[in-house]
Amino acid sequence: MNNENASCPEKHFFGPSSSRITVKGFTYPIEVGMRSVALTRSYECKGESFTSMPLYDTSGPFGDPDFSHDVRKGLEPVRDGWGFDCGAVESAGAALSMTGRKPRVAKAGEAVTQMHFARKGVITPEMEYVAIRENQALESWIEKRGGKPVTPEMVRDEVARGRAIIPANINHPEIEPMIIGRNFRVKINANIGNSALGSSIDEEVEKAVWACRWGADTVMDLSTGKNIHQTREWILRNSPVPIGTVPLYQALEKVGGKAEELSWEVYRDTLVEQAEQGVDYFTIHSGILAATLPYAEARQTGIVSRGGSIMARWCRAHKQENFLFTRFDDICDILRSYDVAVSLGDALRPGSIGDANDVAQFSELKTLGELTLRAWARDVQVMIEGPGHVPLHMIRENMEMQLKHCHEAPFYTLGPLVTDVAAGYDHINSAIGGTLIASLGCSMLCYVTPKEHLGLPDRDDVREGVIVHRVAAHAADIAKSSPTAWLRDELMSKARYAFAWEDQFSLALDPLKTRQIHAQNMAATGDTAATA
Amino acid sequence: MNNENASCPEKHFFGPSSSRITVKGFTYPIEVGMRSVALTRSYECKGESFTSMPLYDTSGPFGDPDFSHDVRKGLEPVRDGWGFDCGAVESAGAALSMTGRKPRVAKAGEAVTQMHFARKGVITPEMEYVAIRENQALESWIEKRGGKPVTPEMVRDEVARGRAIIPANINHPEIEPMIIGRNFRVKINANIGNSALGSSIDEEVEKAVWACRWGADTVMDLSTGKNIHQTREWILRNSPVPIGTVPLYQALEKVGGKAEELSWEVYRDTLVEQAEQGVDYFTIHSGILAATLPYAEARQTGIVSRGGSIMARWCRAHKQENFLFTRFDDICDILRSYDVAVSLGDALRPGSIGDANDVAQFSELKTLGELTLRAWARDVQVMIEGPGHVPLHMIRENMEMQLKHCHEAPFYTLGPLVTDVAAGYDHINSAIGGTLIASLGCSMLCYVTPKEHLGLPDRDDVREGVIVHRVAAHAADIAKSSPTAWLRDELMSKARYAFAWEDQFSLALDPLKTRQIHAQNMAATGDTAATA
Repeated sequence: MNNENASCPEKHFFGPSSSRITVKGFTYPIEVGMRSVALTRSYECKGESFTSMPLYDTSGPFGDPDFSHDVRKGLEPVRDGWGFDCGAVESAGAALSMTGRKPRVAKAGEAVTQMHFARKGVITPEMEYVAIRENQALESWIEKRGGKPVTPEMVRDEVARGRAIIPANINHPEIEPMIIGRNFRVKINANIGNSALGSSIDEEVEKAVWACRWGADTVMDLSTGKNIHQTREWILRNSPVPIGTVPLYQALEKVGGKAEELSWEVYRDTLVEQAEQGVDYFTIHSGILAATLPYAEARQTGIVSRGGSIMARWCRAHKQENFLFTRFDDICDILRSYDVAVSLGDALRPGSIGDANDVAQFSELKTLGELTLRAWARDVQVMIEGPGHVPLHMIRENMEMQLKHCHEAPFYTLGPLVTDVAAGYDHINSAIGGTLIASLGCSMLCYVTPKEHLGLPDRDDVREGVIVHRVAAHAADIAKSSPTAWLRDELMSKARYAFAWEDQFSLALDPLKTRQIHAQNMAATGDTAATA
Repeated sequence: MNNENASCPEKHFFGPSSSRITVKGFTYPIEVGMRSVALTRSYECKGESFTSMPLYDTSGPFGDPDFSHDVRKGLEPVRDGWGFDCGAVESAGAALSMTGRKPRVAKAGEAVTQMHFARKGVITPEMEYVAIRENQALESWIEKRGGKPVTPEMVRDEVARGRAIIPANINHPEIEPMIIGRNFRVKINANIGNSALGSSIDEEVEKAVWACRWGADTVMDLSTGKNIHQTREWILRNSPVPIGTVPLYQALEKVGGKAEELSWEVYRDTLVEQAEQGVDYFTIHSGILAATLPYAEARQTGIVSRGGSIMARWCRAHKQENFLFTRFDDICDILRSYDVAVSLGDALRPGSIGDANDVAQFSELKTLGELTLRAWARDVQVMIEGPGHVPLHMIRENMEMQLKHCHEAPFYTLGPLVTDVAAGYDHINSAIGGTLIASLGCSMLCYVTPKEHLGLPDRDDVREGVIVHRVAAHAADIAKSSPTAWLRDELMSKARYAFAWEDQFSLALDPLKTRQIHAQNMAATGDTAATA
């Protein structure tokens, strides 16, 4: 399986019909990467002929078959060449180990966030990039279908309102910018490194690139263990997608795993350390308050969020309010200096359907809404994390409450899982709830793998988790009437009706598996299946 | 993998904590089979202690570890011992090959359907059976949760109204009766035999039993090829669940595969042949009319139903109306004589999301509604087949239109698939749409396997397809507030919170896979996974 080596870009990962194309910016010298699939014939859709289709692509330069890469050097810092003046920035701290570059930081009192520029009316290269990217070079088709192509100005406006975020740390110049918001394509996140077993740079980078290859729009690095700093550096320097982390996990390691020994100082230093490296968003559990802990104790399954459990223990040990809450303005002052977005963690998310939409969950959601306003007051980009375990008929209320209490900040959910008894199939369970909540306005789905609740995902699980959530995200885009999503389905259906197998492989969300199953079937029967 | 041999009942298929229990009837000498799982500790739910949980079970006598079985003899004709007088029945036709028993048939002009008895106010053994079965021996729990246990009288009333069906041919005495209707547990169907490759009785029976083992409530036998009659006989005599077929497929084989050579006579004889064997429901494509064919021609993907394509070709060749429509009353006269339920096929179901909810689909749906009334006029039990490919936001309209036009007859859908580009993952695609439509009132989901659109399912695909649709059906029951479904989730969550792994395996929808993944993980890490 040569073509399954994710960071071996000289291979045609998705087959020879797939190639990388770039679209140039109007205002900035950007080159927006996409994947184009050549079709074997011409398909007529609403009077337009298609012999190829450009697809949104998350694999970055790895998607270019001619790309030559050295994981020890990392990707090109493409954003540095876009000539945008970030304002009052200086270099500070120790040079980064892989590149030797000194981290950048805003001068005291200054902000360098996308929200800051958006509110000043400035369109950044990142805004132009995501506008072009979202349209998939299909502007005329979008208009023909009665849609409106995304414009840089529309992106600016959404970011200024806080209804979308562009996670793009000024110290992560390697990324292809992307946007998270409900008026854009639904995104998915893949978690990696929840195992302490990986050890080499090749292994760690391969994990991150593997997830992007299959369609992860962002990657959360949940690595633990001794080499946590170095591992993150490897991943950041080689990642074409934004990287998120939970800084609390590293802070906890610094105090020997004892939650009660956590302190603001240790946590603050961890934030700075990771911000300097270039992490694009932090999950921060500021919403769990001492006053709401009794609500959680009355539950079927208490607190299932790891970050939530840590802070609950800290609060109880110190008989004090959560310092991630009391110090939230200080946290935001750090984030605004690097443009790290905050993903407000749902420490009290339900861990069983019996706990869904309860007072613990919704009281935290209201707190997250207050924190959103505090972050926005400092021009910090915000998204809100969501459940968890929620029965299908209670999902809409979750979305409505989130929009209402969190002032339309983007929602980023894990699942929701719609039953508790699907162990071994929780990726599917998650895709069921995820499709519905995304169709109702959730902006990004955190993937769940078949190992959820049971063990650590391997390579196959990551692929399965990513693709299944791509199915969910795409189905939600279809439900939201996205013209680009509909075009892909229309071309696929026309190829299917014409028995044009190569085109079906090219347009499928998993071209490799589709081709493989078909080949096995042809070998066994020489024919295709029909259903009643 | 000893315990994966489905028709080897001496093995403990789901492990030693799982056993078969039976609950006796009050009125009839019935023994309703269930599966009970013993738990390793006591769990407190709303003041009630649970050290075990009875589960709905579809594996029939195969679920009994002490059951000794000979596939050549078939299952016991248990229904024959229930002492119910079917009325005016006689034996007719040639003796069945396996049992030597002569088929039964109602005397001319008589009806023997569950609907016939229900309308006369008679509670049959089958009605009592399904009432007990649906409650899972949890009547007191159901009441505690504010629900109402199912009663035989309630079953009778639902069947009389046509809002539920009990597919139970008088010539299929081997089954454990089950009910399909939206006020009952959501059911799933598995298709088997869409391959001509199977040849021995052991293989064919194993396929059917394998599907039941994993949770298929009914099985559709879509076998083709030379041994079609004998294969069906093997399956029927060994199946504890109702069997459905598409008689048109066999009729077509009788005329050498040439649609235009089909005739009423050939079709009628096929119906009688299969009804005498004991098939419990027939998919019949009576709703596709010559007048609606032009609608289909204007579509992206025309007619994708096999039965629909056959009848369209016949109509065009003969320039006549579909004989399955013109002869529908004659068809019903046959069905009522054996109590074969009719599953009205959606020959014009959309084959792509672009064709969803179009005039072709909905005009056929209206015809199906008219046919429903005609079948009911003859006391024939009816369900309605549904799409197909439908985007998530258009699913509700499908369900509402079905209820409205088809007078609340049960809806039985394939998917719906919510996107066209998920080849290789269409079982998941189907589960997404299936969960939503079942939560809105669809009564039974036809499974889709990972091979959909690509090839023929193997053993693993059948298991995957069944479990994934069990997830969907169960999640829909949760969304419909089923107290028995909620109890299972509550016990599972409590076991999870207590790290009671054995109980989690017992309560999971796939105990084997759950146990296997956990064991692999323990071997690799000695620990369990957490998410952010």
